[in-house]
Amino acid sequence: MTDKLYMERALALAAQAQYSAAPNPMVGCVIVRDQQIVGEGWHRRAGEAHAEVHALQQAGAAAKGATVYVTLEPCSHFGRTPPCANALIEAEVAEVVVAMVDPNPQVAGRGLAALEAAGIKTKVGVCEAQARWLIRGFVSRMTRSRPWLQVKMASSLDGNIALANGESQWLTGPDARADVHRFRARSSAVLSTAKTVLCDQAKLTARAPETVQQPLRVVLDRSLQLTPEAALFAQTGPILLVHDQALQPNAEVVWPQHVEHFGVAADGQGLDLEALWQELARREINIVWTECGATLAGRLIEQGWADELIVYLAPQVLGHQAQSMLQLPNYSELQQTPKFKFTETRLIGADLRLIAIPDNGRGDLES
Amino acid sequence: MTDKLYMERALALAAQAQYSAAPNPMVGCVIVRDQQIVGEGWHRRAGEAHAEVHALQQAGAAAKGATVYVTLEPCSHFGRTPPCANALIEAEVAEVVVAMVDPNPQVAGRGLAALEAAGIKTKVGVCEAQARWLIRGFVSRMTRSRPWLQVKMASSLDGNIALANGESQWLTGPDARADVHRFRARSSAVLSTAKTVLCDQAKLTARAPETVQQPLRVVLDRSLQLTPEAALFAQTGPILLVHDQALQPNAEVVWPQHVEHFGVAADGQGLDLEALWQELARREINIVWTECGATLAGRLIEQGWADELIVYLAPQVLGHQAQSMLQLPNYSELQQTPKFKFTETRLIGADLRLIAIPDNGRGDLES
Repeated sequence: MTDKLYMERALALAAQAQYSAAPNPMVGCVIVRDQQIVGEGWHRRAGEAHAEVHALQQAGAAAKGATVYVTLEPCSHFGRTPPCANALIEAEVAEVVVAMVDPNPQVAGRGLAALEAAGIKTKVGVCEAQARWLIRGFVSRMTRSRPWLQVKMASSLDGNIALANGESQWLTGPDARADVHRFRARSSAVLSTAKTVLCDQAKLTARAPETVQQPLRVVLDRSLQLTPEAALFAQTGPILLVHDQALQPNAEVVWPQHVEHFGVAADGQGLDLEALWQELARREINIVWTECGATLAGRLIEQGWADELIVYLAPQVLGHQAQSMLQLPNYSELQQTPKFKFTETRLIGADLRLIAIPDNGRGDLES
Repeated sequence: MTDKLYMERALALAAQAQYSAAPNPMVGCVIVRDQQIVGEGWHRRAGEAHAEVHALQQAGAAAKGATVYVTLEPCSHFGRTPPCANALIEAEVAEVVVAMVDPNPQVAGRGLAALEAAGIKTKVGVCEAQARWLIRGFVSRMTRSRPWLQVKMASSLDGNIALANGESQWLTGPDARADVHRFRARSSAVLSTAKTVLCDQAKLTARAPETVQQPLRVVLDRSLQLTPEAALFAQTGPILLVHDQALQPNAEVVWPQHVEHFGVAADGQGLDLEALWQELARREINIVWTECGATLAGRLIEQGWADELIVYLAPQVLGHQAQSMLQLPNYSELQQTPKFKFTETRLIGADLRLIAIPDNGRGDLES
């Protein structure tokens, strides 16, 4: 029970880095000696000290014989910083409690083994579900070699995204739109389509005050419709334009330096997104935040790629003649339709934000 | 502050009668003497003792000099029971705190005046909004001469009520369906259409274990399509079939005794519902619970009659080819669309229940 309280504190510390840790996982650490917290730390960003190091520094001599709560198994390898397992051993802590083992199959368990070999007691699994959810992007990349895909939708209470004539601005209110910018800022990439970029003159940048790093902007532009004049390109920050590899970008068009083209195969279904997910994982993208129209959103759901739906429901109704939020096949039985599980609902201004995961969803990430 | 706590207790007592009080309002009463609750009561059903009488009985001699909290102004007239104002005066209470005055314009303020004339201190407006909401059906009937109209819908997360081929059973789960039966049991009438009754073989009875009185079943059957064979009629309990008054029910058909026909005018929009609301108010119907298809639901919203939407969202998506939950005009501007305000969200089993009121809605009932 006390374990749980200290680990929840460590998780809260970890979450401090939600805007800055990527591509690293968020990690929090609490050091407890004689029922007193003597050190706390969290990992702010790649290249900087890990959570355990900050907490050990704060604890000083008090770390000796203490219990360390850390949301993720301490690392045992030399990366950009020396291994945390070594630091814990040197500090002569008595016990290390971790929420979850490292999801990277290549190093999983090594940190714990090093601690145990040095005579330190270890315990695994306190608040594990929360810890895994907190770093679901990192877990997804490590265990599935693809990012965690969040699909954002904004619709009326009756599931429509625009009037029949296309009018859609603004269905949701300013608070919901600000919330979207925070989601963009917490993701490693924002995914959209050329159609959305052209129709909405979308910039796809994160404009929340909390923003630390701009996400990579990824735009599906199968037939190379975009030109450098689009609003998207005015803002610097890396952009990846994904097109049908059978086509070649016009060599005479001069693109800004921050724009890169990436060709993948395409068929009747559209671009080969499997190839895109692999490329994004290779680029250390943990979370992809998707803002698109009903066609791509439908495809992402239908093909089982949507790991999390974030739906902003505006408190108004548009009726049957308006535009539906999702293009899906013509199912003949309810059993065939994609199923989800509501995990959170919150009022954001006047709008309702629903979060749902595939009914078998989180299972994918379970160890 | 203490006033608020005692009134909240009185409101909780009042709510005990949510399945039985209609057509009377729910009322709760708490009597406090020297910071001790010495009596509590609530009005169970029409014809039985009022909340104040129960509380005074429990308090006995302790009522003298006490403060009485009651959710509705005590009555001052001889109805089926003698006036509560008299009972309070006889008990020589010192002060009466009420949440709201009687919404019946013909008697409003008389109970308070009687108490004041007898030298009893009075105070009005503690927890008034909650009290008005609790008895919104009664308030609606008294102030607008029409019942409070609840419109129930059950849809997928993307706003559809059935697949293109009509399949809709079961979109929502058993908990949501049980919840619907509790709503039916708390209402005075259940409204539906001949189409829904025929398609779903609906009985429209309240089958919750909490049920005390069966609601009046009201079915819009403009062109007299229903026959006595429908599942609806197998169950006894009063049924009102509303048809175009230009047509006459076939005199040769023998209807069960509990079925009554009621003709109203009809035009291109459908039956004259204004006339129906008046008739239902005349029959002392406080709350009408509506279960119907997209056409009537759309009309009730579009014409401003829907006082409260209760939407069960199932955690699945059906796509753009499925059937929309609401038939509405083809709006050309978002400004024209009906606006609501979310007032409650709750997970009912795996489904999400949203409650919304027209954005200017509750205003109608404000005094």
